Amino acid sequence: MTDAAALLAVAKEEARLGGSEGGVPIGAALFSVDGELLGRGHNRRVQDGDPSMHAETNAFRNAGRRPHYRDTIMVTTLSPCWYCSGLVRQFGISGVVIGEATTFSGGHDWLAEHGVAITLLDDAECVAMMRDFIERRPGIWYEDIGVPVRE
Amino acid sequence: MTDAAALLAVAKEEARLGGSEGGVPIGAALFSVDGELLGRGHNRRVQDGDPSMHAETNAFRNAGRRPHYRDTIMVTTLSPCWYCSGLVRQFGISGVVIGEATTFSGGHDWLAEHGVAITLLDDAECVAMMRDFIERRPGIWYEDIGVPVRE
Repeated sequence: MTDAAALLAVAKEEARLGGSEGGVPIGAALFSVDGELLGRGHNRRVQDGDPSMHAETNAFRNAGRRPHYRDTIMVTTLSPCWYCSGLVRQFGISGVVIGEATTFSGGHDWLAEHGVAITLLDDAECVAMMRDFIERRPGIWYEDIGVPVRE
Repeated sequence: MTDAAALLAVAKEEARLGGSEGGVPIGAALFSVDGELLGRGHNRRVQDGDPSMHAETNAFRNAGRRPHYRDTIMVTTLSPCWYCSGLVRQFGISGVVIGEATTFSGGHDWLAEHGVAITLLDDAECVAMMRDFIERRPGIWYEDIGVPVRE
């Protein structure tokens, strides 16, 4: 398998791009197990007004149609939420490389229980991007994970 | 809660529309718990070349951004796959009305374990639409659920 940090670099570029557009700074990329980039993307809630475009889903979409995903790896800057974890499980994506699970923890333990190879990094830039965004735009962040904002 | 069969009728309209377009005949709709239609859609793999647009995701997308989903119900012609089940769990959608789980069974029991109100119907037209499609287009169907086709 290709070096996880090198794969994560592509997802981090996407996260920075999303942040520069005013969006939620989460990026992702789908690679083959041989390291070929198949699709990349970032959260597009703000940019497109589209709540379904979490980063992993956007990268999956941008990879286009494939007969199956057994030979692919999802790389994401943040622990995948249940929606994106369900994507990984349903499509049989074989591994997930995660930038950090400090600011949010989704379904990666559940994926591991179901045979998905999880590589959890602790990338300081990924943490910093999310901490900054959550502090500046808490309403958008909680909307992005479906959590009603406490009044 | 509004009558489940009446809600399902909207998802079935979407499934028929998707089938008439040459796509996978699965439809869905997001309603408020009061019965207001918030968004409707159908599987768009074939039509848009977009593997991320399962019916439930398409209905969710078409409902647009919402602060939260605690007061919503997802209606779908077919048991939601793990991807769409993850969507329901992450966004806290309170209930799912399902046309049938005979031709495919996804994550609805898991959702029930996590507090989602599941209404599982056994709608003959929903079953017939899927049986017919799977028989005619097995390759597209297995691609849609990420299952490598057996040679």
